[in-house]
Amino acid sequence: MFSYVLPFVFAITLCLSATQAQSPNIIIIFTDDLGYGDLGVYGHPTIATPNLDQMAREGLKFSQFYSGASVCTPSRAALLTGRLPIRYGMVSSTVRVLFPFSLSGLPSAEITLAEALKSAGYKTGIVGKWHLGHKRPFLPLQHGFDSYFGIPYSNDMLKNPEAKWGAARNYPSMILVEGNDIVEKEVDQRNLTKRYTSKAIDFIKDRGEEPFFLYMPHTFPHVPLFASKDFEGTSTAGIYGDVVEELDWSVGQILKTLKEEDIAENTLVFFTSDNGPWLVKKAEGGSAGLLREGKGSTWEGGMREPAIAWWPGTIEGGQTTQQMATTMDIYATALDLAGVSLPSDRAMDGKSMRPIFDSNQSIRDVVYFYLGAELFAIRVGKWKMHYKTLTPYVGEKPETHDPPLLFNLDIDPSEKRNLSVEHPDVITEINKVAHAHLNSFVPPPSELEKLDTMLISGSKKYDF
Amino acid sequence: MFSYVLPFVFAITLCLSATQAQSPNIIIIFTDDLGYGDLGVYGHPTIATPNLDQMAREGLKFSQFYSGASVCTPSRAALLTGRLPIRYGMVSSTVRVLFPFSLSGLPSAEITLAEALKSAGYKTGIVGKWHLGHKRPFLPLQHGFDSYFGIPYSNDMLKNPEAKWGAARNYPSMILVEGNDIVEKEVDQRNLTKRYTSKAIDFIKDRGEEPFFLYMPHTFPHVPLFASKDFEGTSTAGIYGDVVEELDWSVGQILKTLKEEDIAENTLVFFTSDNGPWLVKKAEGGSAGLLREGKGSTWEGGMREPAIAWWPGTIEGGQTTQQMATTMDIYATALDLAGVSLPSDRAMDGKSMRPIFDSNQSIRDVVYFYLGAELFAIRVGKWKMHYKTLTPYVGEKPETHDPPLLFNLDIDPSEKRNLSVEHPDVITEINKVAHAHLNSFVPPPSELEKLDTMLISGSKKYDF
Repeated sequence: MFSYVLPFVFAITLCLSATQAQSPNIIIIFTDDLGYGDLGVYGHPTIATPNLDQMAREGLKFSQFYSGASVCTPSRAALLTGRLPIRYGMVSSTVRVLFPFSLSGLPSAEITLAEALKSAGYKTGIVGKWHLGHKRPFLPLQHGFDSYFGIPYSNDMLKNPEAKWGAARNYPSMILVEGNDIVEKEVDQRNLTKRYTSKAIDFIKDRGEEPFFLYMPHTFPHVPLFASKDFEGTSTAGIYGDVVEELDWSVGQILKTLKEEDIAENTLVFFTSDNGPWLVKKAEGGSAGLLREGKGSTWEGGMREPAIAWWPGTIEGGQTTQQMATTMDIYATALDLAGVSLPSDRAMDGKSMRPIFDSNQSIRDVVYFYLGAELFAIRVGKWKMHYKTLTPYVGEKPETHDPPLLFNLDIDPSEKRNLSVEHPDVITEINKVAHAHLNSFVPPPSELEKLDTMLISGSKKYDF
Repeated sequence: MFSYVLPFVFAITLCLSATQAQSPNIIIIFTDDLGYGDLGVYGHPTIATPNLDQMAREGLKFSQFYSGASVCTPSRAALLTGRLPIRYGMVSSTVRVLFPFSLSGLPSAEITLAEALKSAGYKTGIVGKWHLGHKRPFLPLQHGFDSYFGIPYSNDMLKNPEAKWGAARNYPSMILVEGNDIVEKEVDQRNLTKRYTSKAIDFIKDRGEEPFFLYMPHTFPHVPLFASKDFEGTSTAGIYGDVVEELDWSVGQILKTLKEEDIAENTLVFFTSDNGPWLVKKAEGGSAGLLREGKGSTWEGGMREPAIAWWPGTIEGGQTTQQMATTMDIYATALDLAGVSLPSDRAMDGKSMRPIFDSNQSIRDVVYFYLGAELFAIRVGKWKMHYKTLTPYVGEKPETHDPPLLFNLDIDPSEKRNLSVEHPDVITEINKVAHAHLNSFVPPPSELEKLDTMLISGSKKYDF
């Protein structure tokens, strides 16, 4: 039997008295593998991000915002369901993300943000990388989106059935999907950011009377890196800089469109990323700034992200909040703003960020750090405790810590000084929170492990 | 014979046509041991610096600004003379800074920024930590300042003649100097930032018709850390956060005063720090953000600093520049603004930053990184080359590199990936620049090594 009584689960959110017509538009801009330190406004010295810096000047910058996982698929699942991926099988400790030979995807029983907002009368669209299942039952149109334009999984994944998993270092060409169909078999990745931007602007301009939800999960700066000819070779910071600066340009275009269309004051734009920088890619990976490690790890660099909330007239500009929040809170916030109750038949892991927007009030004390299906670490208030750690790609073998590692993130955000010996009492308390969490539900079988082995072996033709 | 022909030495700066009355006031706020990553606007997650963030929104933020050395005394000398400390003996590889038992200080032959501006009719004042010689001939009043209020050297240095160098871990009390006299034998360090702020505001308010130069070298966040009761225990980030947040408050008070006095548009305020964070102090030291190492090293974290130029109406707000500049360029800038020619009888190492302020034009390609009297590293354009490196306090033995280490700071600001094998041609070119520099002058004997050995041994009474 499941128990849905978790410390951080909200009572059903009160419906707003606002009518649908008054609900704001919601745009989520979600980059791929962008590090905590990669934007000017987060301290990067040579990547110029004037539009995101400006967005922060006009909006609210988060300094302790977390993604739902340290790799693509579970992170996107968390954002779009408001729930930890462990609750619905979007995790695995052997196959961490979906691949072109995966047979499954985000379970249809999940209520995506698109579905929830659609129920409140929103027009819904996604422009960008999906990565929650490329088989038809799992594509965005079957998950509440009215329209879809983008790539189905990561841009380094093989489409050639002859290529084996892991053999794709030559970065095979990528398919482009519109609706439920492949519209291009060999999309030119150099123009993806531009085309996404153009599609997003069209979506905004072609809106109807109803409010809209636009989800814009960019393909980049995930490796392989491509920028358009307007940006390639133009940044100080090499191709990684070019790519991030084109994303910055794209954000500027979106905000400019909202202002020109005179709907900026009725639109919440939330910018963040799916996970930390892919450090093993060296010059082609980003920077977590002062945070430790990056993508694929449960150190802070793996899951703490740049995040900016922008809503002129409602969110005061030029502020920074230290309040903790996660991508699952974006889900809860959007439902709150749309006047939709959070689903009451399942455990939810997000809370509305309106108290942060309105008066910088705390909404959560706890963040869970899963690596695959395992709870590697947990943050309670200022304390981060690691049961296990992994330095990605260095042998890939997790290290177990007994006693767990303990860091005070308030004064040691770089996780340099283990305080477990000094604070056994804190370990005891955090253990209780972790155990209550782990005992509150039984994880279902992994969806990520449902693989087409004939496709992996190359004995079957790849069929999307 | 000296040769003053160096690649980066300017021809004599053209005099401005402006009269003295039109010259702007100049304020330099100089913190002690603040790291590149320690401000909100440089990405720190838990130190709240709303006033410095605001200063950056209203001013120009530098992402590649360097101090003149990685420790106190030579760094301050570089700022106040516009010249590398190696040129006038303010370096030593055994005694890196001045101590209470030092017999010397900044040579009087040097033309300090205060002296140069005084010659242009400026009123000059210093509020804060001097650390360029506490014997009377070397105190600020003998170096061009009209007034002085502050401490003579670092706040962790012994004043007790019975205490031996290095035995001062109990942080003895600190003297306070006004003019040429000790006015308090046991100053309460908790109130230093407040008192400095109050003195600085008085200096601004009591100005005359002439323009003024205010140099405000704060005592903190150098260890031992002290905050006033209004700030102690108030930040998220522990005592280090408290102290930096009080400095941030102080900056806010200064800018507010300038606005209230209606002289903001005629005042250039430059904020930066003397060297990187004192990492060995752990929770009481700061963060260099994504940069490597800190104080006492010639890695980027030792000498690259937060830096903000603020001059409403002249410097456009909300901009970031990637142009390289150093504290010695502050000297040249101030003289430029005051209509004073740079001294032509000696080698100068700074250039006016007006091209950066006006149109983001480059002013320099080369930065020298001395550790003590040795050239450890050199930056030419994007390339940083290390002949030697030191990880401070870990044995304190420099490591020699042959071939030198080579980093592309544009795409690798964290100095992670040595490219010396890939780019021997770059090493050859940079070697030429380094050799031309080293052959262009003969360093005089060290002033820092002139010590009162009787005082060190405790056989003599300490007499200021």
